[in-house]
Amino acid sequence: MTSELILSRRDLDFILFDWLQVDSLTNRPRFAGQDRFDYASVLDVYEALATDLFAPHNKKNDSHEPLFDGERVTVNPEVGVALRAFAGAGLMSAAFPAEWNGMSLPGTIERAGMAYLLAANPGTAGYAFLTIANANLLIAHGERERVSHYVEAMSEGRCFGTMCLSEPQAGSSLADIRTRAVPTGDGRYRLFGNKMWISGGDHEISENIVHLVLAKIPDENGQVPAGVQGISLFTVPRKLVGADGLPGDRNDVVLAGINHKMGYRGTVNCVLNFGEGRFRPEGEAGALGEIVGEPGKGLAYMFHMMNEARISVGLGAAALGYTGYLHALDYAKTRLQGRPRSERDPTAPQVPIIRHADVRRMLLAQKAYASGALALCLYASRLSDDIHSLESAHAREEAQCLLDLLTPVVKSWSSQWGLVANDLAIQVHGGYGYTREYNVEQFYRDNRLNPIHEGTFGVQALDLLGRKTRMNGGAAMTLLGEKVADTVARAQSCASLRRHARALESAWGRIRSVTDQLHALDDAELQLANAAAYLEAFGHVVVGWLWLDQAITADALASGPRASDFHRGKLAACDYFFGWEMPKVAAWLAVLDPVETTPLNVPEQWL
Amino acid sequence: MTSELILSRRDLDFILFDWLQVDSLTNRPRFAGQDRFDYASVLDVYEALATDLFAPHNKKNDSHEPLFDGERVTVNPEVGVALRAFAGAGLMSAAFPAEWNGMSLPGTIERAGMAYLLAANPGTAGYAFLTIANANLLIAHGERERVSHYVEAMSEGRCFGTMCLSEPQAGSSLADIRTRAVPTGDGRYRLFGNKMWISGGDHEISENIVHLVLAKIPDENGQVPAGVQGISLFTVPRKLVGADGLPGDRNDVVLAGINHKMGYRGTVNCVLNFGEGRFRPEGEAGALGEIVGEPGKGLAYMFHMMNEARISVGLGAAALGYTGYLHALDYAKTRLQGRPRSERDPTAPQVPIIRHADVRRMLLAQKAYASGALALCLYASRLSDDIHSLESAHAREEAQCLLDLLTPVVKSWSSQWGLVANDLAIQVHGGYGYTREYNVEQFYRDNRLNPIHEGTFGVQALDLLGRKTRMNGGAAMTLLGEKVADTVARAQSCASLRRHARALESAWGRIRSVTDQLHALDDAELQLANAAAYLEAFGHVVVGWLWLDQAITADALASGPRASDFHRGKLAACDYFFGWEMPKVAAWLAVLDPVETTPLNVPEQWL
Repeated sequence: MTSELILSRRDLDFILFDWLQVDSLTNRPRFAGQDRFDYASVLDVYEALATDLFAPHNKKNDSHEPLFDGERVTVNPEVGVALRAFAGAGLMSAAFPAEWNGMSLPGTIERAGMAYLLAANPGTAGYAFLTIANANLLIAHGERERVSHYVEAMSEGRCFGTMCLSEPQAGSSLADIRTRAVPTGDGRYRLFGNKMWISGGDHEISENIVHLVLAKIPDENGQVPAGVQGISLFTVPRKLVGADGLPGDRNDVVLAGINHKMGYRGTVNCVLNFGEGRFRPEGEAGALGEIVGEPGKGLAYMFHMMNEARISVGLGAAALGYTGYLHALDYAKTRLQGRPRSERDPTAPQVPIIRHADVRRMLLAQKAYASGALALCLYASRLSDDIHSLESAHAREEAQCLLDLLTPVVKSWSSQWGLVANDLAIQVHGGYGYTREYNVEQFYRDNRLNPIHEGTFGVQALDLLGRKTRMNGGAAMTLLGEKVADTVARAQSCASLRRHARALESAWGRIRSVTDQLHALDDAELQLANAAAYLEAFGHVVVGWLWLDQAITADALASGPRASDFHRGKLAACDYFFGWEMPKVAAWLAVLDPVETTPLNVPEQWL
Repeated sequence: MTSELILSRRDLDFILFDWLQVDSLTNRPRFAGQDRFDYASVLDVYEALATDLFAPHNKKNDSHEPLFDGERVTVNPEVGVALRAFAGAGLMSAAFPAEWNGMSLPGTIERAGMAYLLAANPGTAGYAFLTIANANLLIAHGERERVSHYVEAMSEGRCFGTMCLSEPQAGSSLADIRTRAVPTGDGRYRLFGNKMWISGGDHEISENIVHLVLAKIPDENGQVPAGVQGISLFTVPRKLVGADGLPGDRNDVVLAGINHKMGYRGTVNCVLNFGEGRFRPEGEAGALGEIVGEPGKGLAYMFHMMNEARISVGLGAAALGYTGYLHALDYAKTRLQGRPRSERDPTAPQVPIIRHADVRRMLLAQKAYASGALALCLYASRLSDDIHSLESAHAREEAQCLLDLLTPVVKSWSSQWGLVANDLAIQVHGGYGYTREYNVEQFYRDNRLNPIHEGTFGVQALDLLGRKTRMNGGAAMTLLGEKVADTVARAQSCASLRRHARALESAWGRIRSVTDQLHALDDAELQLANAAAYLEAFGHVVVGWLWLDQAITADALASGPRASDFHRGKLAACDYFFGWEMPKVAAWLAVLDPVETTPLNVPEQWL
C-alpha cells in the first residue's frame, strides 16, 4: 500500500504548520533547538515505517489473530519486527523529555506520526501507544529510582506497557474492583485478582511487560476500602526484574484467556489472573509489584494514562476514518459505472463513480469526519504541548482546563464519526467493500472498538455534562466560548465564511443556554438522562468550530500565491459540514430542551 | 438459543392480528377456508425451525464459511438439513397459489415466519428466500409448461433459485450488461458471459439450481442492443433437465470464484461464467437456457423478483435488528454494573445496567428501529396480499401504487436503521459485544450487507425521488397522504397521541412541499443531487406514521381489559420515535430546501 492511501501528508502539514503553527513551539525552552525540518524528517520516518513495516501485515493481523495454546501467546512475527524498528528509530521516547533521554518532540508531532501507524495497522500500533502512555504515567507520577529501569526498557522497546483497570464484575465501574495488594513488608506488594480487557496483556514480542494495575490495599483486618478512594496503582512486571535491571523469573501473572474480537485483532486482548500461584514456589503466591506514588491516589494517576489513551483512541478512530476515505476516493476515481443523468446515449462510455453527486456526498462526508477528527485530535495534542511548555502558569492552567473539557469529545466524536466514515467507505465500494478482498471492511470492524474502550460513549457523555462543563464553576465552558467567539469574529471578515460564522455563533449560543438549563435542574437523574444527546450536539459544534477555524486559514492561502485544489477542498469540506452536519445539532438538542423523559421513565418491563 | 431471543412472537401477533388484521383476509376467495388458527400453527412451525434447525448453526456459518476447492463448493451440512426440513414442511410454497400446489397463505404470514429464519440464521435463510422469489417470478411471468418442473422442484426443495443480474463491468448499471443469449434454433438459447455477486450461485445442497439470468439477444449481425430495452430473461439450470424432469448433465455454467465477505457468510456468493465450455463437448459451448416471456422485457420481469427481494432484504435487516435488540435487552437485565446516581453508598450492590437511563435509551432506540422496520415490512406485505386478493381492480391498483412507492423505503430504511440497532446492541454489551463469544457482533456484520445488495441506498433514493414520487402524476404520494391524514385524524381522538399527530401532520406537509419544489426544478442533476437525504427524511416520516398508527391500536388495547406492559411498551416506543427521531427530519430536509449544492458542485480534484 502506498503512503497516499494511508494518510494525507498534505493535510497533516496543513493542520500542523499552517493551522496549528506547531513550528512556533520551537521558541519555547522545551523545544529549543528544534525546527520545522526536524519535524518533517521525523514525520518521514513514521510515514516510511507505516508504509514499509506496518501496512504490509495489517490484513495478516486480521486473518491470523493471536493464538493462545494454553501456555503461550503467539502473534505474527511481523508485529515484533515493526515494533523493534519503531523503537530502534527512537520513537517510543519521541516525546519523552530530554532528562528521560527522549527526543523531547512536541506531542503534536508524535501524534501526527502515530496517526500514520494507527491508520496503517492499528493492531500493531496499539502496543506502541499503550507502552508510550504507560511510560508517560511513570515519568509523571513514579519515583524515578523505582521506575527508571522500566522507562528505559520501554524506550528501547525491550519492555511493553499495559493498563489493568477493568475486572469481570467491574467494567466501567472502577469503584467495584476487588484486586488486592498486600504489603510484603519490604516496601513491595503482592497482588491477587483478575483483570479483564488487557490489551497487550501477554505475548513474547518484548522481553518483558509492565502492567499498571489498579488494586486496593486491605487494612489490618483484611478489609478493602469501598469506592474509588481506596484505589492505588502498582507496577507489576510479567517477569521479575533483577538487580541488574534485566527480566528474570516469571512473576505470578497468568494469562487466563484471550478475547476473540470482531476487529483490532492484531492487539492481543487478555484476561489476566494475578496471584494464582502458578509460577511461584509453594507459599509464595501473589504477583509482586511496587506502588506508584501514594496509596489511595491510584485512580487519579491512572487518569494520566487514561486521558492520554482517550486522545489516542480518538486519533486511531480518525486515522482509520482517514485511510478509509483515501481508499474510497481512489476507488471512486477509477471504478466506472453508470452515466450522468444528462447523458441520453446508452452506448456512451460509463463514467467513474466520482461523477455521481451521491458518491461525492459520501466522499465529502468522510473527509469532513476523518479530517475533522484528525484536526480535533491534533488540536488537543497542541493543548498538551502548551501545558508542558508555556511559561505562564495561568496560560498552562487554561490549556489544561480546555483539554479536560475537550477530552471526552476527542475520544467520542472521533470514534463515532470515524466509524461512520468507514461505513461510507464501504458504501462507496458497493459489494466489493463488503468483501475481505478489499480493505475497507476491516477498517470498519477495527474502528468499531473505539466507541467502547477507554470509556464508552455513555461514560464520556456523563463526564462531559456531569463533570467537565461544571468544573471550576464552568471555567472551561467560558474559555471555549471565548475561543469560539474569536473564530467567529475572524470568520466574519471572510465573505465566503460569514454565514458559517453566524451558524456557529448561534449553535454555540444554544449549547450554552441548554447547558445552563441542565445544570439548573435539581434532579441529577433528569439532568444527565440524555447526556448522550448532549455529547452528540456538543461534539458537532466543537468540530464545526474547528472546521471554520481551519477554513479561515485555508481561505487566506486559497486567495494567495499558494492557492491550490487542496485549500479549496478544505473550504468545500467546511461548507459540507455547515450545510449537512450542523443542522443535526438542533435534532439532538430537541431532547434536551426540555428534557425528553421517555427513556428515563420507561419501566424495564415495558421494554 | 431460545426463540425469545430470536423474535418476539407477542409483537408479531400484535402487528399481524391486532394492527394489520391479517385474519380478515380469510373473507377473500384466495384465502377462503383459512383461519387465524392456521396462521398461528404455521408461525409455530417457522418458530420451531428457527429455534431447532436454523439458530444452532448460525455461528458455525460465520466461522466456517463456504469453501471452494477449485472444483466444488462445500457448505456446512446443517444448511442442507435445515433447508430440507423447511421445504419438507411445505414452506417453500407456503404462499404459492393453490393452482401451483401451494398453501396459498397470505404473503404477510409467510414473511412473518421468514422473519424468524432471517433472525436466526440469515445465511441459511437466504437460499430459501431467493428460491421462493425465483419461483414467484416464474409463476407470474413464465409459460407454465416450460417452468412448472422448476417450480415443482423448488417447492420440494430439490432445486434452488438465484438471480443473475450484475456483471463485473455492470454493477448497478444493468444497461451495460454484456451477457449474450444466442438462439439455438430449437427455441432455446446458449448464454455466454460473466455474472457477479450471485448468492447461492453454486453448491450441492439441492440437486439442481435454476439461475434467472439477464442477457441480450444479438441481432443477425451479432450486435447486442444498447440500454435496458434489449435485456431479456432466461432460465439457466446448473444441470440440464431431462425429459423426465430430473437433472442430468452439467450445463455450461462454471463457478469462477467465491467472495469472502465481512458477514452473511452462510450464503455462498459467487462469480459465475456462462458458456466457458468447461462441461460441454467440443463445439457445444454455451449455457443452455430458455427465455422467460417475451424478448426485451427481461428487466421488467426481473423487477418482479427484485421488488420481492427488496422487501425480503428489508425484512432480513429488521429481523437482525430485532434479534440484536432482544439479546441486548436480555444482557441489560442481567449484567450488573454501577449504581443509580442517587445511590451514595459505594458498598450498595451494583444494579443491572437496564437501570441506567442511557441504556434504556439505547434499548428503546433499538425497539423503535427494529420493531418499526418489522411493522413497515409487514405493512408492505399486507399490500401485496391486497394486490393478489382484493376484488376491486381499482383497489388493487391503489395497493400496487402504494407498494411501489414504499418499496425503496422498506428496503432502505430497514437496512439503515436495523444496522444502527445492531450497533447499539453491541454498545449495550460493552466490550463483550465486540467479541465473537457473544452474538451481536455477527448480527452487525451480517446486517451490513443489507444497505448494499438489491440496489444500494443511493439507488433506492433515486428510485424514490426520481420515479416513485412522480409516477402516475404523483398518484402514490396523494394516496400516501390520505393514509397519513387518516392516521392523524384517528390519533387526534387519543389524548396521549395528539401531539404526535400534529408532529406527523407537519412533517408530512414538509415532505409534500419539498417534493413539489424538487419536482419543479428544471435541472435533473440538481433535483436528484441530494436524493439520499430525501430518502432519509421520507423514511423517518413513513415509519413515524406507522408507529403512530400502531400506537392507536395499542392505546385502545392498553385502556381495555387486555392492557399489558406490552401495549404500554408499544406506546413508549412511539413516544421515543416522536421525541428522538422525528426531529432528525428537519436536519435532512435542510439540504433539500433549498438544495445544498456542495457535493453536486465540488470538483473531484478538490476531494
